[in-house]
Amino acid sequence: MKFFCLTLFPEMIEMCMNTSIVGRAIKNDLISMEAINIRDYTLDKHRRVDDYPYGGGAGMVMQAEPIYKAYESVCERLDKRAKLIYLSPQGKVFDQNDAKELAKLDEIVFLCGHYEGVDERALELTNAECYSIGDYVLTGGELPALVMMDAIARMVDGVLTNNESADFESFEDNLLEYPQYTRPVEYEGLRVPDMLLSGHHKNIEEWRRKESIKRTYLNRPDLLENANLSKKDLIYLEQLKQESSELDD
Amino acid sequence: MKFFCLTLFPEMIEMCMNTSIVGRAIKNDLISMEAINIRDYTLDKHRRVDDYPYGGGAGMVMQAEPIYKAYESVCERLDKRAKLIYLSPQGKVFDQNDAKELAKLDEIVFLCGHYEGVDERALELTNAECYSIGDYVLTGGELPALVMMDAIARMVDGVLTNNESADFESFEDNLLEYPQYTRPVEYEGLRVPDMLLSGHHKNIEEWRRKESIKRTYLNRPDLLENANLSKKDLIYLEQLKQESSELDD
Repeated sequence: MKFFCLTLFPEMIEMCMNTSIVGRAIKNDLISMEAINIRDYTLDKHRRVDDYPYGGGAGMVMQAEPIYKAYESVCERLDKRAKLIYLSPQGKVFDQNDAKELAKLDEIVFLCGHYEGVDERALELTNAECYSIGDYVLTGGELPALVMMDAIARMVDGVLTNNESADFESFEDNLLEYPQYTRPVEYEGLRVPDMLLSGHHKNIEEWRRKESIKRTYLNRPDLLENANLSKKDLIYLEQLKQESSELDD
Repeated sequence: MKFFCLTLFPEMIEMCMNTSIVGRAIKNDLISMEAINIRDYTLDKHRRVDDYPYGGGAGMVMQAEPIYKAYESVCERLDKRAKLIYLSPQGKVFDQNDAKELAKLDEIVFLCGHYEGVDERALELTNAECYSIGDYVLTGGELPALVMMDAIARMVDGVLTNNESADFESFEDNLLEYPQYTRPVEYEGLRVPDMLLSGHHKNIEEWRRKESIKRTYLNRPDLLENANLSKKDLIYLEQLKQESSELDD
């Protein structure tokens, strides 16, 4: 996977991409990332890349030309029209399924705008697909691009070790994670649940599964609609519902 | 607003917080941000902060003690129990209303875990509130903490200039933004819509409002349920619905 990131803050993008699992994947040549400064593609002698919006209004708008030229320079090198993703609250809300699908591509170009907006023609000319990472307003597209690259990079073959991907599977079932504990057994008067110290692997699995269902039911009941639940899970879920309706009475 | 960020990657947090609008707000003393290295609070001689999970399973778990001690050090300096937010897919999904509410606090401590998990007792002892920035899996809590700090910082009084906050209002109505254009009038054969060049401010406002409604209807119809629509807006929306049902026939 080759990531390209068209941005006004290339150092920020580079620094963030070099930490942790993503940094390791770059070192191992499983993915690559190049931050491209949009300012390098303006013809303006003061290196300006924005101008006032036609029709009036607050804020500045990023011009089409530097963006289009930066994108074209990537396409020329690749000798193909690469997919461009524009980060914007207007976009489709990004989720884990998108991360998996996008990880199958050979390259993705991210365009980090600033939320005053980008000239619409830049999006038309690059055939941009718009994604939003959530319903909140941010200063620019850099953090959302980093979030998407991180989530996508994890789904590229070979990036996660077996250990790490096994761990990921638990989100797959559309359930939240069970609580985790590590040493010591007692800390500040709080003890690890006895079950986890029992050594009975089958019982531990069952306890964890129930905790996952309980947390999902309490915190994100919307996820349960698409959760992958066994008959046993469904019986437990019914029991939880009954308990909470009794509490309400 | 004072942000504190408990993390294993303090340089990444500091670098990102110094760009753009948030960096300006820090320079102007409207907000402050301190990244605290959790490793500075471990008693382990190899500076380890994680250990195997009780009950078995893949991955490592971050230990309660270094996290709790890092949090306590912040509370001692502030002479109060500060709110701690733990970034986790288990959490409540963060949105713009949360950004506004959280911006009223005097200080927030963010805990950036890694998604193998954090010892549950660290969350109990710090009375952690859990937030998720979206339904995708990331390498660690650093990017989500940066996203939340960016969105919250923008809502702190005085951080945005009048121009910038006026721009924000358009998201307030729960509608997506209208398309933006800047110079030149024609680029690569694409022209700015004539309406925007007309100088008729009232007509431009109407055109933009319709474009916002149309985009929201086409891309994020779910937002319309809570949108703030006038009678005129509702008539236009009905018209859009009719047009698209005719297209379907």
